[in-house]
Amino acid sequence: MTELSRRRLLTGAGLAVGGGAVVAAGAGLLRQTEQAPRSVLAAGSDQSIAFHGSHQAGIATPVQDRLHFASFDLSTDSREDVVAMLKAWTAAAVQMTEAKEVGGGATGAELAPPDDTGEAIGLPASRLTLTVGFGPSFFDKLKLPKPEGLKELPHFPADKLDPARSGGDVCVQACADDPQVAVHAIRNMVRMGFGAASIRWSQLGFGKTSSTTPNAQTPRNLMGFKDGTNNIAATDEQKLDTHVWVGDEGPEWMRGGSYLVARRIRMHIETWDRTSLKEQEDIFGRTKREGAPYGGTREHDPVALDKLPIDSHVRLAHPDSLGGATILRRGYSFTDGSDGLGRLDAGLFFLAYQRDLEKGFIPIQRALAAKDTLNEYIQHVGSGVFACPGGVSPGSFWGAALLA
Amino acid sequence: MTELSRRRLLTGAGLAVGGGAVVAAGAGLLRQTEQAPRSVLAAGSDQSIAFHGSHQAGIATPVQDRLHFASFDLSTDSREDVVAMLKAWTAAAVQMTEAKEVGGGATGAELAPPDDTGEAIGLPASRLTLTVGFGPSFFDKLKLPKPEGLKELPHFPADKLDPARSGGDVCVQACADDPQVAVHAIRNMVRMGFGAASIRWSQLGFGKTSSTTPNAQTPRNLMGFKDGTNNIAATDEQKLDTHVWVGDEGPEWMRGGSYLVARRIRMHIETWDRTSLKEQEDIFGRTKREGAPYGGTREHDPVALDKLPIDSHVRLAHPDSLGGATILRRGYSFTDGSDGLGRLDAGLFFLAYQRDLEKGFIPIQRALAAKDTLNEYIQHVGSGVFACPGGVSPGSFWGAALLA
Repeated sequence: MTELSRRRLLTGAGLAVGGGAVVAAGAGLLRQTEQAPRSVLAAGSDQSIAFHGSHQAGIATPVQDRLHFASFDLSTDSREDVVAMLKAWTAAAVQMTEAKEVGGGATGAELAPPDDTGEAIGLPASRLTLTVGFGPSFFDKLKLPKPEGLKELPHFPADKLDPARSGGDVCVQACADDPQVAVHAIRNMVRMGFGAASIRWSQLGFGKTSSTTPNAQTPRNLMGFKDGTNNIAATDEQKLDTHVWVGDEGPEWMRGGSYLVARRIRMHIETWDRTSLKEQEDIFGRTKREGAPYGGTREHDPVALDKLPIDSHVRLAHPDSLGGATILRRGYSFTDGSDGLGRLDAGLFFLAYQRDLEKGFIPIQRALAAKDTLNEYIQHVGSGVFACPGGVSPGSFWGAALLA
Repeated sequence: MTELSRRRLLTGAGLAVGGGAVVAAGAGLLRQTEQAPRSVLAAGSDQSIAFHGSHQAGIATPVQDRLHFASFDLSTDSREDVVAMLKAWTAAAVQMTEAKEVGGGATGAELAPPDDTGEAIGLPASRLTLTVGFGPSFFDKLKLPKPEGLKELPHFPADKLDPARSGGDVCVQACADDPQVAVHAIRNMVRMGFGAASIRWSQLGFGKTSSTTPNAQTPRNLMGFKDGTNNIAATDEQKLDTHVWVGDEGPEWMRGGSYLVARRIRMHIETWDRTSLKEQEDIFGRTKREGAPYGGTREHDPVALDKLPIDSHVRLAHPDSLGGATILRRGYSFTDGSDGLGRLDAGLFFLAYQRDLEKGFIPIQRALAAKDTLNEYIQHVGSGVFACPGGVSPGSFWGAALLA
């Protein structure tokens, strides 16, 4: 290993593999070996991400490997019931993100159902984050004032949205490096929500397609491309304040929060796979192997818009083409069996966070829906928009400032 | 870390984390950092599993973390077309299991579709294995003699099999520690099969529930239990020969192969989660936290059948209750969104390998279907049975001895 590559290894992707980290990984290993061995032992997966803070975790947090996203419908119009659920969810989230059992692992009550469903016992924290958002219908059902920034998305040409995969009153985004930890979290929230909310739709994402780590290579999507290279870095506080976190323009409970757009984007991968390399590259405006923008040689080389085909994805979605419109991407690849027509039901579950939908997803998608040559190969089949409140303080709960 | 726990760390689950392995992990890290960084860097995930051998890889191989399983229907009755597909699949499998691109990464033909779909470029081998099996209908369609050992499963009480998730002419089991690597493999086989076979159903498994590592703790299923503790170890050649590998009783092409039963088992987790700990434990005949059989204190303590409730899962499925009936388990948890009734569509995708179905899955499932108290909480909703031929020699291809 050369000195240069060694240094890149140590710092390039924000990864520490020095002595301390090895010890930490060793402790994680030990725990896994004793409790629930996995053949892949994730260095760093024993890390926990702080739940409390001025922003919710899971937005600017370096993107974890796996996702379980759930959208719930309220089955009550009682604010008290919803507050009770959100309090229970918050308490459980604090425990789960610290790799503790829901309920703290109390024993003895063997005639009662366990407080925790158990499938994550012994697994490390796996950098679990849980992020909650409220859809427009949440405010209608509970007769609460809707923030001005939260609006239903317009219809975009070629949208083919399935109501059963769209909308919802409350969403929970669970991200973790171990899918079992993410699924466990959502499943326990479903369980605790019984009587107040039931699941409307959910989505597993098996592979992240975004990075918020500065200068890191972007993981590839199911088209084989690195897309969203120009993402906001988790460390770029100025850009986060400008483009992601709601400021004084929002109601108090939304300050430090963000608006989330979730889109289930089916890819027609069979058609894509029969398209020439040149056409694929022209559509993105990037090389496939390296991910370099046309005119550059490396993924992170600056994008010269005039070197890109006029209707290419990168050019159309670039902030310079759209008066600065910018989002923070946290998308995941999905494969949900097949569609009955001999094709895999696969694509991108796209998650975009922004301070202002009108300066984020809406103008970007308007441009893409109108002109993007990629449209021949994709279709938006699910959609949701949610107001994710600011961070939770110790002792408080999700949505406290809105509901209390 | 105590000396004892350190030793357990080094040997307990068959994991080497000594100097050599650290170097190997470092090399894997480097590659990932340069190409497609992942926040979880899997020690050992840069390992590749040999494709060639006297048995197919992916059966006795230590169980990888993730699964993508696909069942295909032939769209041709031409043996030539099928041979051509199996040859192409085999060549690609050799490349993919070595973390190479399909086609070897040839460049230049930018007016042709790429040979590889690209989403795994830069990812390590991740211990990918690809295992092929032929369903009963494969032999009918191609007018080939069906091995005596391959028969349709009988109907079991309470089966509620969905034809769209059952059967199929050819199956491919892709196991890997990185789901993107497993999905990439299946997707490329779908692509290469175009014209000869199309996908009938597929299943993603996000978390393994079985271990074939001697004395390792069994990963928990979505009921929070360790099930299948008494699995056959990958190192126990005598048990493998007795219970898993087909011997002289089978046609030549099946020797060293195995019969695979795949069952999609939906769990009614919402009901389960409202069941008392005592009832849950009585149903399995094991403690939930440790996984110890009733009468024991540790997971791997010997099972004393008379200490277990008479209709408990462990007692009913135990070889001593069934004249020695034994299977090798490679099951995975799944969560496929929700079912439209506010419930997660979650459960166990059960994969059982055996030398003889009549001394393996069939008597076990007959006993469980008749008496298992677990039946209140599960339902079998998909099913397939496949003859997985013996191993592939270098230069040969899957099914050569059957088809050539």
